[in-house]
Amino acid sequence: MATNGQTVGRYLVTSVPVARSRESAGEARGRLIGQRFDDASHVFLLTEDGRLIGVVAIRDLLGAPESTPLHDIARTAEVYSVPLGADREYAATVAIHSGLSILAVCDAEGRFLGAVPARALMTILRDEHLEDLHHMVGILGKSEAARDALTAAPHRRALYRLPWLLVGMAGSAAATAMMSRFETALSAHIAVAFFIPAIVYLADSVGTQSEVVVIRGLSLTDSALLPLFAGELGTGALLGAMLGCLAFPIVWFFFSSVGLAATVGISLAVASTIATTFGFLMPWIFARLGYDAALGSGPVATVVQDTFSLLTYFVVASWLVF
Amino acid sequence: MATNGQTVGRYLVTSVPVARSRESAGEARGRLIGQRFDDASHVFLLTEDGRLIGVVAIRDLLGAPESTPLHDIARTAEVYSVPLGADREYAATVAIHSGLSILAVCDAEGRFLGAVPARALMTILRDEHLEDLHHMVGILGKSEAARDALTAAPHRRALYRLPWLLVGMAGSAAATAMMSRFETALSAHIAVAFFIPAIVYLADSVGTQSEVVVIRGLSLTDSALLPLFAGELGTGALLGAMLGCLAFPIVWFFFSSVGLAATVGISLAVASTIATTFGFLMPWIFARLGYDAALGSGPVATVVQDTFSLLTYFVVASWLVF
Repeated sequence: MATNGQTVGRYLVTSVPVARSRESAGEARGRLIGQRFDDASHVFLLTEDGRLIGVVAIRDLLGAPESTPLHDIARTAEVYSVPLGADREYAATVAIHSGLSILAVCDAEGRFLGAVPARALMTILRDEHLEDLHHMVGILGKSEAARDALTAAPHRRALYRLPWLLVGMAGSAAATAMMSRFETALSAHIAVAFFIPAIVYLADSVGTQSEVVVIRGLSLTDSALLPLFAGELGTGALLGAMLGCLAFPIVWFFFSSVGLAATVGISLAVASTIATTFGFLMPWIFARLGYDAALGSGPVATVVQDTFSLLTYFVVASWLVF
Repeated sequence: MATNGQTVGRYLVTSVPVARSRESAGEARGRLIGQRFDDASHVFLLTEDGRLIGVVAIRDLLGAPESTPLHDIARTAEVYSVPLGADREYAATVAIHSGLSILAVCDAEGRFLGAVPARALMTILRDEHLEDLHHMVGILGKSEAARDALTAAPHRRALYRLPWLLVGMAGSAAATAMMSRFETALSAHIAVAFFIPAIVYLADSVGTQSEVVVIRGLSLTDSALLPLFAGELGTGALLGAMLGCLAFPIVWFFFSSVGLAATVGISLAVASTIATTFGFLMPWIFARLGYDAALGSGPVATVVQDTFSLLTYFVVASWLVF
């Protein structure tokens, strides 16, 4: 999971209690007293060549009888660790899955280097939350810039938000150019224009849901991606079909045109399916390129989706109305 | 901060080490050994009537000389705690500000009840992140439903996402009805229709940025709201003015109509300002009603914004083009 984000190396503390698994609880307790640690909430059990084989929570160490060997009170079955170069978001995900409030960091040979303490894991979880929110709305990514985007003077905030909006504006110019090619047909059937906001809005809403599902799948859980995609595609198509079936009789009733009603209905179904596909692919592409997946749900992803929704609508209208 | 969310009571552990502040490190260490705690990463210093006056991290307790009184190694200046009924998201925010990886819970009189351990704080931070993402795209809020919205069969996922989409669809019907009132004018000036997606899209993008700023301000940080709003309004107006000034010459050049160019430019500025206001007010209203602020950035907030953007555009067009 290589990303351009920050690695766990930045959060590593190396002064943490370590012990051999045969050592007794009493010995370990006696040895720890008087020592200075960066974090002493857990004791890491290592082999002679420094490999991590278990973790003992301090509450279990305190509570154990004098002679109990540490391996009896350690969590050994599932030793979670990450390499030094691991992305911090990935590390937080591993920590959540581990069920512990500390995360071991090992080198490529599995030798223990240190740990990311609970406090750092909490900071990472918070920062990644804020970063996702910012990326989803096209506020610049660097944490200092993002803070400025909230607290600086308005003209400075505006500068942090303008770049993605300009890219989005260029994208919406493409949508305008595309529509202008249908000028004559649209003049003759002006009612087609009335549904432009609805089609774009609904397909976008369905697609945005898929964006969140894939962001979640890529960076917040370790779901398998292909079944997630198949399921999303089905869900998007189904939602589009439901919205289309609902819209068809309503449009027919109010506009007395079965062609227009069918255009709106079919476009909703097709555009929702396409938006689901894009909603899934954009965050995935950003993640593959090493960026935060949430960037793939920002203003640029939205304008690409919108343009395809419009294209779908006009192609279907050309066939059924124009 | 009363919300309909979950309270910290659910995450409370009551078996944690407590001590008097005059007790020495050596005494406290001796007393803790052999006891079973739910969490032993911190020792809470209490007065005789049970009031919280300090917190000692276990690493400081282990590292201190035998005779050092606990109040010398405690963090006393800034004792953070929350009441039992506090919302879990608020609690996580307090914990982040406290700089500790555990959060004390006290009753109304300030008497210590227990603590929310690091592991629970991490789970809360993760769950709130997922909940925000889900609420922003209109996936139903309950955690079980949200999990189902990802992993269930497509027809069940679709049902979890349909409700907000239906409300959004009703909203977009209002937009359609509003546009149909301009039928004659629009037929005569069809080029006006070409900019509908761009106006709606850009105003929406600017407004969505404000939504995230206020969600952040309301639930993730403890920023003062009024200066945030004033700053946002300025930022939104400025972004709209910049986009408008940029669009004006481009539209004039390609469509040879200064009236249309002015309509697009002015509408972008005005609609962005309105979208900023709505983007700020909607999450605030949801939070005031006791819901998650992120719900105020979902599909319903978007369709309200879109309708006002369209209305702005048509009102300006009526004045300058029609």
